[in-house]
Amino acid sequence: MEAVRRFLSEKSERVNNSLRSYVGEWDNAPERLREAIDYSLFAGGKRLRPALALGACELVCGDDAAAMPVACALEMIHTYSLIHDDLPAMDNDSLRRGKPTSHVQFGEALAILAGDALLTMAFDIAARAGSPDVVAELARAAGVEGMVGGQVLDLAAERQQLTLQELQRLHSCKTGALIRAATRLGAMLGGANEHQLAALTAYGELIGLAFQIADDILDVIGNTETLGKTAGNDAAHHKATYPALVGIEEARRLGNEAVSHAITALEPFGHEADIFRELARYIMQRES
Amino acid sequence: MEAVRRFLSEKSERVNNSLRSYVGEWDNAPERLREAIDYSLFAGGKRLRPALALGACELVCGDDAAAMPVACALEMIHTYSLIHDDLPAMDNDSLRRGKPTSHVQFGEALAILAGDALLTMAFDIAARAGSPDVVAELARAAGVEGMVGGQVLDLAAERQQLTLQELQRLHSCKTGALIRAATRLGAMLGGANEHQLAALTAYGELIGLAFQIADDILDVIGNTETLGKTAGNDAAHHKATYPALVGIEEARRLGNEAVSHAITALEPFGHEADIFRELARYIMQRES
Repeated sequence: MEAVRRFLSEKSERVNNSLRSYVGEWDNAPERLREAIDYSLFAGGKRLRPALALGACELVCGDDAAAMPVACALEMIHTYSLIHDDLPAMDNDSLRRGKPTSHVQFGEALAILAGDALLTMAFDIAARAGSPDVVAELARAAGVEGMVGGQVLDLAAERQQLTLQELQRLHSCKTGALIRAATRLGAMLGGANEHQLAALTAYGELIGLAFQIADDILDVIGNTETLGKTAGNDAAHHKATYPALVGIEEARRLGNEAVSHAITALEPFGHEADIFRELARYIMQRES
Repeated sequence: MEAVRRFLSEKSERVNNSLRSYVGEWDNAPERLREAIDYSLFAGGKRLRPALALGACELVCGDDAAAMPVACALEMIHTYSLIHDDLPAMDNDSLRRGKPTSHVQFGEALAILAGDALLTMAFDIAARAGSPDVVAELARAAGVEGMVGGQVLDLAAERQQLTLQELQRLHSCKTGALIRAATRLGAMLGGANEHQLAALTAYGELIGLAFQIADDILDVIGNTETLGKTAGNDAAHHKATYPALVGIEEARRLGNEAVSHAITALEPFGHEADIFRELARYIMQRES
């Protein structure tokens, strides 16, 4: 896993620099809003989605610079979604990445607005990639048939018994769409051909599934300190999760199966894609 | 005012058709989310921002079709902002366009998500104009130095005594930025030259100011039935407004002055821009 840690830390350092430089442009924004944005955006996230976008771009063209604006936009959208998900009206969480959640720290109004601001500015930054198609795909991944749609399904599923198929749809919208968009947009911006794009789409979809299964399992077996967010929260909210539906062992098997299919999907790339293979394994083995 | 009513009703009919067609694409969105979006998006708004975008495009090139995606995106962003502004943590309003507000009708969680969805999908639709610059300008008008920034200033100003300059900054962000973006983006998409763009930028800025002054005055002198939202709400929330700061008469004078400067800004266009002159007058004379 050492190579994955190096990969993630190298990418996340550059992503953080770019994010700081984008946020630094907002001279005329109210000070308190900038504070609330900084608080959540630089709370020590793993930067998985940006790393996937940059890595996919690099895999097809040898350089990841073209994907940097979209990588940062993905992280801003991910961060906004965490702020809004944590709100009292939603999951009502008070701990995120080891710190008080945004509404606990800044009040509910400013937390809502910080989320709105991150979502909005993500598209200013994504537009710098120079492609309307990329903007549109990012919006759709985050939108009514993607992340927001998944969040609506998630809330509706509380205290409901879903089928495995319904749970898969929920997760493929809520978590999967943005992770899939990360590898796809990175590949598109790197000039991927049809086969490369198809391979990285399949890979993104499968690790997105594995990521959510691992997240569900960690909520059961992890502890609050390592996770940086409240463990056992899914059960407390009667959330639809893989462990709740099929048990921990079967959930683990489904997650490992997705990882192994994700690795297979990378075949066209040969050894160049080894870091993405490692990353897929890491996703099921991580502890936070 | 008859010509303005005809202009607004002709534009809004076409905007509504386009909005219906965009929303109609979202086959895989959760039903309840689509309901909440429809409820707010088709609640009978005046479609002022789309009409400005379409009108500006028409003024410079004789046809408004190129501006339709952005016109719809502007209305979606405006609608999301109303949903979030009305939330209990923000202005806590229960009436909007003569109907219960979104969170009263659908609960707070779905109202937050319907707003998030409208904001997100606005960029999918805006991207269809084919210009990354247009997407970026739209995002900035709605973002930290624009509408969201203004909303943060507005909340911070409650129970504060602002100077006239601070109040102008607040309004120029909160309401002005999106109205200014409407005329500017319409003009850009119509292929405006530098002088045309400058004229329509000034016009948008000035009617944006007049619009907010008129809104502040209506909150004092209007009644809840005609307004379709709770009259007297600004005073109840100790909001910073023009009537509160300078009195109704002086506020009216400032509004009329902005209208008259807006009309002057249209000089380069001659009689072709008469409908925009009428529209500027209508903005100060409207009753809702």
